[in-house]
Amino acid sequence: MSKSQPTITLITDFGLQDGYAGIMKGVIAGINPSANIIDISNMVEAQNIFQAAYILNSSYKYFPKGTIHIVVVDPGVGSERKIVCLKTDDYLFLAPDNGVLSFITTNTSSSFTRVTNNEFFLPELSNTFHGRDIFAPVAAHLSRGMNHQKLGEEIDKIRKIDLPKPILSPGGDLTGEVIYIDHFGNLITNITSKILNRLEVKLQKLSIIAGGKRINTIGTSYTDVKEKDLLAIIGSTGFLEISVNQGSAKNLLQLNKGDKLIIGSE
Amino acid sequence: MSKSQPTITLITDFGLQDGYAGIMKGVIAGINPSANIIDISNMVEAQNIFQAAYILNSSYKYFPKGTIHIVVVDPGVGSERKIVCLKTDDYLFLAPDNGVLSFITTNTSSSFTRVTNNEFFLPELSNTFHGRDIFAPVAAHLSRGMNHQKLGEEIDKIRKIDLPKPILSPGGDLTGEVIYIDHFGNLITNITSKILNRLEVKLQKLSIIAGGKRINTIGTSYTDVKEKDLLAIIGSTGFLEISVNQGSAKNLLQLNKGDKLIIGSE
Amino acid sequence: MSKSQPTITLITDFGLQDGYAGIMKGVIAGINPSANIIDISNMVEAQNIFQAAYILNSSYKYFPKGTIHIVVVDPGVGSERKIVCLKTDDYLFLAPDNGVLSFITTNTSSSFTRVTNNEFFLPELSNTFHGRDIFAPVAAHLSRGMNHQKLGEEIDKIRKIDLPKPILSPGGDLTGEVIYIDHFGNLITNITSKILNRLEVKLQKLSIIAGGKRINTIGTSYTDVKEKDLLAIIGSTGFLEISVNQGSAKNLLQLNKGDKLIIGSE
Repeated sequence: MSKSQPTITLITDFGLQDGYAGIMKGVIAGINPSANIIDISNMVEAQNIFQAAYILNSSYKYFPKGTIHIVVVDPGVGSERKIVCLKTDDYLFLAPDNGVLSFITTNTSSSFTRVTNNEFFLPELSNTFHGRDIFAPVAAHLSRGMNHQKLGEEIDKIRKIDLPKPILSPGGDLTGEVIYIDHFGNLITNITSKILNRLEVKLQKLSIIAGGKRINTIGTSYTDVKEKDLLAIIGSTGFLEISVNQGSAKNLLQLNKGDKLIIGSE
Repeated sequence: MSKSQPTITLITDFGLQDGYAGIMKGVIAGINPSANIIDISNMVEAQNIFQAAYILNSSYKYFPKGTIHIVVVDPGVGSERKIVCLKTDDYLFLAPDNGVLSFITTNTSSSFTRVTNNEFFLPELSNTFHGRDIFAPVAAHLSRGMNHQKLGEEIDKIRKIDLPKPILSPGGDLTGEVIYIDHFGNLITNITSKILNRLEVKLQKLSIIAGGKRINTIGTSYTDVKEKDLLAIIGSTGFLEISVNQGSAKNLLQLNKGDKLIIGSE
Repeated sequence: MSKSQPTITLITDFGLQDGYAGIMKGVIAGINPSANIIDISNMVEAQNIFQAAYILNSSYKYFPKGTIHIVVVDPGVGSERKIVCLKTDDYLFLAPDNGVLSFITTNTSSSFTRVTNNEFFLPELSNTFHGRDIFAPVAAHLSRGMNHQKLGEEIDKIRKIDLPKPILSPGGDLTGEVIYIDHFGNLITNITSKILNRLEVKLQKLSIIAGGKRINTIGTSYTDVKEKDLLAIIGSTGFLEISVNQGSAKNLLQLNKGDKLIIGSE
């Protein structure tokens, strides 16, 4: 970890109007003025744990070693739900124990700590804003080099949610589903390039049925098809995406998270 | 004040598309590259002075001593309205004199300065963007340690707006109102925990009528009620809030700012 | 350039939910932890090149000398479109060669470099997220003082888009159009104060027909007219704007980008 300029990131469902993320940054700056705080997203849908887990998964590895990633999507705030600190080889994660850390790569040297030591909290705890009262000050102390083991007792495991798995039919077709829809309307699926490579069909021969339409182009650039036309493409996180060149696949296909698509040979 | 890494915050109604807040940060960085600029909110409703005042009130105390808080919600920009610098024991505030600083705690050693010294402004003043031309450069100079008294003449007072006061009926019921609605749809009222404690009824025996519904739970966590159920809770700024566990009280009750609610015994 | 705390700015159409801008900041922080990254806007409309060019034009000069401005509005990502680095006397710009740099002031000592040297890219390139894989690491290396000539070969010119020009009729009327609409609903036109000064009519005698209404006030403050009334004003970028005091001219006049307005004498 760069002690001199440690990075702290935020993923929250706080939105941008009320100042909640800014307040967390104020608390951090009071404890560690040299922390470099980066918003990943404060626009997670309210209480959408899966979405937060997906966004964290697509982003956390692009930050410097030693970065402290905070996730505050926390419908259980004020209840007996745990707050956990996950330490991996490269990062520290602070989050409620509700599944938001499900997709973090761990190994045998990773550890989970239950955060209970109120010595590192703000002196007065509210019922509804632990981002301000617990997550921010704890992250700030960690960013000053404080050992995570001081936060509380080690625990065995944390809660996990699963990525839905694609299903291979006896006929050789693959059924996947939409797991995330981004701001551009790209439909991100649970089909990885790895799974596609295992199919006995060449990429160029694949055909996808989604939203009642057939997509024959598995492209390498949105411009592989005409403007407003559909294509499939391996997106920036390694998942197959359904996209529209200069348009929104979500709007064109009227698909939502959880909707299915079928991949087979032409 | 940490001279080496002073914090400057922004509360504006500039939104996030046009780059107006970013431009302010550019001006500040040109004068004081080591300033640590934190957005509290750039999503105040256009010209909504009360909302800006509320957001500032809920956030400013969580920033390090010496922080310079800028508020640019300024319908009078370009007119003869004053710009003021409020100095308190711990903070400096820069804002138009329109009420946005109403809820800041002051004492006898606090001072108000009318900002007129154009030595600290950008050389060319526009009619419509004093955030860029005045507030940003003045804050940047303050963050370098410049004495606020150089900004202009001291003035006696600034404009204030009032928080609406709850009303106690002869029968012992308390009538409050919604003063702010956050991004989650929590309805924040003008009832403080202090006022509630003065009622001759225990918290557990209180009952609230809001939007035609009765709320009997004054909880300490959203999860004190079932999903999508209503509760009241003391929120993170010390006001009573009406909330829905994993939902929006605003949507459920169809209440707006200024709408009344009645608190009595069950 | 302040080597110790160089500024990097972002203009993208990435929105704020998915974490794309945050990921770029993570990549930059990994290469140059002391870079000061400022969002100008991540809310450019998807693929709207003109809008990005306009926002860049209105903002870039307000940043410190040496600032590196990144624009990622890039419908051609993954195709053969070029990425360019424009060096002017005061700034460096990194952008796809699609017109987003059209309004930057250049002179004979400005240079254009085609960015091809993958030594400064992330090791694995995606098809869809060059903001992360190319723009961010290249900007970070530039911010450490790396010479832009290392990025690739110099090229002669870049693609340009034109600002629509106002048209002077034989009768002396000027026809302009709306080129940008900001968050407040201000209608920004292609009429500069310079052009207005060339008309043989005094500002106070001008009259504007827009959206079927006549506007006789060319003001110096929104408060020159009553609340909810229309006025014209020279805005903060030097263009004539149609505005409403404490309201939205866009909503009142129902005008859109490209709609015309006529300026003549009363």
